Amino acid sequence: MNNPFFKNHGPFKIKDLLNDINCDNSNILGDDLILDIKDLVTASKNHLTFFHSKKYQREASATKASYCVTYKNLIDYLPNSCKSICVDNVLLTISQFTSKFYPDSINDDFDNTVKEINKINFDNNITHGHNVLIGENVQIGNNCFIGHNTIIEKNVIIGSNCSIGSNVIIRNTIIENDVTILDGCIIGKKGFGFFPNNQKNLRYPHIGIVHIGKYSEIGSGTTIDRGSLSNTVIGQNTFLDNQIHVAHNNKIGNNCIIAGQVGFAGSSTLGNNVMIGGQAGISGHLKIGSNVQIGGGSGVIKDIPDNSKVMGYPSKDLRQFLKENK
Amino acid sequence: MNNPFFKNHGPFKIKDLLNDINCDNSNILGDDLILDIKDLVTASKNHLTFFHSKKYQREASATKASYCVTYKNLIDYLPNSCKSICVDNVLLTISQFTSKFYPDSINDDFDNTVKEINKINFDNNITHGHNVLIGENVQIGNNCFIGHNTIIEKNVIIGSNCSIGSNVIIRNTIIENDVTILDGCIIGKKGFGFFPNNQKNLRYPHIGIVHIGKYSEIGSGTTIDRGSLSNTVIGQNTFLDNQIHVAHNNKIGNNCIIAGQVGFAGSSTLGNNVMIGGQAGISGHLKIGSNVQIGGGSGVIKDIPDNSKVMGYPSKDLRQFLKENK
Amino acid sequence: MNNPFFKNHGPFKIKDLLNDINCDNSNILGDDLILDIKDLVTASKNHLTFFHSKKYQREASATKASYCVTYKNLIDYLPNSCKSICVDNVLLTISQFTSKFYPDSINDDFDNTVKEINKINFDNNITHGHNVLIGENVQIGNNCFIGHNTIIEKNVIIGSNCSIGSNVIIRNTIIENDVTILDGCIIGKKGFGFFPNNQKNLRYPHIGIVHIGKYSEIGSGTTIDRGSLSNTVIGQNTFLDNQIHVAHNNKIGNNCIIAGQVGFAGSSTLGNNVMIGGQAGISGHLKIGSNVQIGGGSGVIKDIPDNSKVMGYPSKDLRQFLKENK
Repeated sequence: MNNPFFKNHGPFKIKDLLNDINCDNSNILGDDLILDIKDLVTASKNHLTFFHSKKYQREASATKASYCVTYKNLIDYLPNSCKSICVDNVLLTISQFTSKFYPDSINDDFDNTVKEINKINFDNNITHGHNVLIGENVQIGNNCFIGHNTIIEKNVIIGSNCSIGSNVIIRNTIIENDVTILDGCIIGKKGFGFFPNNQKNLRYPHIGIVHIGKYSEIGSGTTIDRGSLSNTVIGQNTFLDNQIHVAHNNKIGNNCIIAGQVGFAGSSTLGNNVMIGGQAGISGHLKIGSNVQIGGGSGVIKDIPDNSKVMGYPSKDLRQFLKENK
Repeated sequence: MNNPFFKNHGPFKIKDLLNDINCDNSNILGDDLILDIKDLVTASKNHLTFFHSKKYQREASATKASYCVTYKNLIDYLPNSCKSICVDNVLLTISQFTSKFYPDSINDDFDNTVKEINKINFDNNITHGHNVLIGENVQIGNNCFIGHNTIIEKNVIIGSNCSIGSNVIIRNTIIENDVTILDGCIIGKKGFGFFPNNQKNLRYPHIGIVHIGKYSEIGSGTTIDRGSLSNTVIGQNTFLDNQIHVAHNNKIGNNCIIAGQVGFAGSSTLGNNVMIGGQAGISGHLKIGSNVQIGGGSGVIKDIPDNSKVMGYPSKDLRQFLKENK
Repeated sequence: MNNPFFKNHGPFKIKDLLNDINCDNSNILGDDLILDIKDLVTASKNHLTFFHSKKYQREASATKASYCVTYKNLIDYLPNSCKSICVDNVLLTISQFTSKFYPDSINDDFDNTVKEINKINFDNNITHGHNVLIGENVQIGNNCFIGHNTIIEKNVIIGSNCSIGSNVIIRNTIIENDVTILDGCIIGKKGFGFFPNNQKNLRYPHIGIVHIGKYSEIGSGTTIDRGSLSNTVIGQNTFLDNQIHVAHNNKIGNNCIIAGQVGFAGSSTLGNNVMIGGQAGISGHLKIGSNVQIGGGSGVIKDIPDNSKVMGYPSKDLRQFLKENK
């Protein structure tokens, strides 16, 4: 994944990584340098990857990573070029390693590097309100409006002709041209991902960003969390109404229309031209096709093929739902 | 509709309106002046109206408008006094015309005319917090409280004895006496109405306002969008809980009690003394009677007569719902 | 109930209380002093309590209160040591009395006692943003972060190592150590409790607080209302996602995980290790056990025993729900 915002604090020696987690893997050459952490597909030489489920055996057998965190019963799927690091909990360990490479992705305290916009020299024509705060590593295009009390925290790129409302908070986000963000939105915070633990849950790093395509509109009070190991994406010319929650890693296509109070549980993919009625909920890790229509209040817990109309909780074919509920 | 806030940029010559949309209607007397755009019922001489569905044939046959945007197959319903303008998409055309008369109703960029409340001379006794901003054309009654960081954008009338919380944003709204608005509400923004278009959706003008009756209370984080061609109305002594979404054109009666996270899809009418449980959803264009009780989580997709109790998704008679779900 | 924040304006003579409500109870010794208002169990000598339903007859018969507001048909359950005050509407009367003892609990106007944090001398190490406002009777522990535009209104105790986001509003709340509150939360406002009345609803006093246990996390845009006569409680290491609404008097246990847009109607109790999927709704006055799992979108209207998995609207056993909805 392309990661424009979170600083990679590596490389680290593999022995130092293993020491940190009290892991004894005697087959490891301790002085090898690990440059980055990647998934099975995008990893290459001197990268560390992870493999936690048989489901991904095909990707595992083709990985170019030098090291892979995995379970003992999965090591035979890995190619000889990839050394295995066997642990008790793959996701927990990779989370710990990711935190070491990207410590800034764990900490979502408010951004105290921001400055008042008046004290920053923007070359572009920006119309801004009172009490607007801008963090480090922020770019804003021409002819943008930024409302009162809005905080553009660090690591944000905003295109031209964008209209950002008041009381908005944005961080770790790329916004293309001609996007409208209405009042009170909170965009780019870490998602609701962590390892439950009876004493103190362990936060999963979120090194992904939010990416919003051109001509899109985000309604008032909507929250869009950034991704964990991939991005949260809103396509082009996609309109979201008020009080929608888009959790981490969702990827919504182009020309979608999503009504008020809809919720996305995370890591689902939507095609183009999807219409979703108010208060519908989309479970996690689903694949919703293109040209799909989902009735208001529906609870979607299964994949939906292209060109389908569904409604209900759980959602089913629209005609069947209407027939059963005459 | 009474429109106190949006400036009418007309009159326009009918030929100029038609030119703008590349419309050739050779039966039109080009120099006639159009003063305003109205619906079929309220339009009178020198007004332009629109007629897009047979459903409104009765209103069409009695309209007093001088001109009417309509479809070829509907022109025979119009009286001789009303000249028809035939187009391919009535709502799209009327939207374009409305934008010309009321260009300010399209643009919902933040209000950069606001001033700090300390720099405005109010005759009335107003207790206000830090960083309160007030736009043009704002009236505030006696004995009002306005919390910190609250933005009263242009075109707002607030009665006496009102308590507005902190971080509230209001525009294009009339609030009667003795109303309470809790923290973080966003009231009077344009609704979620537009014409879908694969490249770039076309925003529908919203020249309506929000009207909130006396003694009402609006809970924290609630959003109320203003109407498009009519108003969004909250009746007297009607209480809304937190995180409710009231979309454009809804009209809610008096003495209603609406629990948290309820959503109104738009253009529905509720009578008086309606009680709605948490998270219920009310579809668009419905008529809900008086003294109706709607159970929490219900999905209402049909009209409900007076004095009914309903629950379910879709909602049905409460006793039947409870019987079926023992 | 322990009440650290609301000032008791008593004691009052019983005859003055009765005069205020035009109540003629000739059996009352008018000069007796009432020190406080308590529930049946915690009340002791010189306290006033209330008893409005046969359901509480056991507690009534053992109460140590000197006076009890009740109905005529319930007075025989009270011990001889407790004098009855018979009224037409017990809850309405006790609300009026509570308002007299705790007038500050009715008024939730914005806190205009706040000062800019720069003008307050905190001994502790606090990292704060721009435009942070702090009310009276506020304590903040060591190593806390408080984001931009955040308002800590009066009557708040925050432990050490807490991270409060931007645009947050908190009042009448105790927050233990190591708690994270994300952006835009509104915590500690009065709940949605009142007596409906056709002219003007009568607000019920809310003298409870919000209590948030250590290591917990509250997601962006979440609202948590304070209790009326008891507290609203979030347990230790309990994680709430974005846009959740927790109404007054709910008590949520430890190590719970609650996904986005869930709503709690009020006065329900949850055990420990409860997991709730997105958009589920929990009705009022329920008892949810420990180790319970509630599927996303569920509507819970009955108690749930320990170790259950439920889903549906209304919720039922998970396996049954999945079987019925294959």
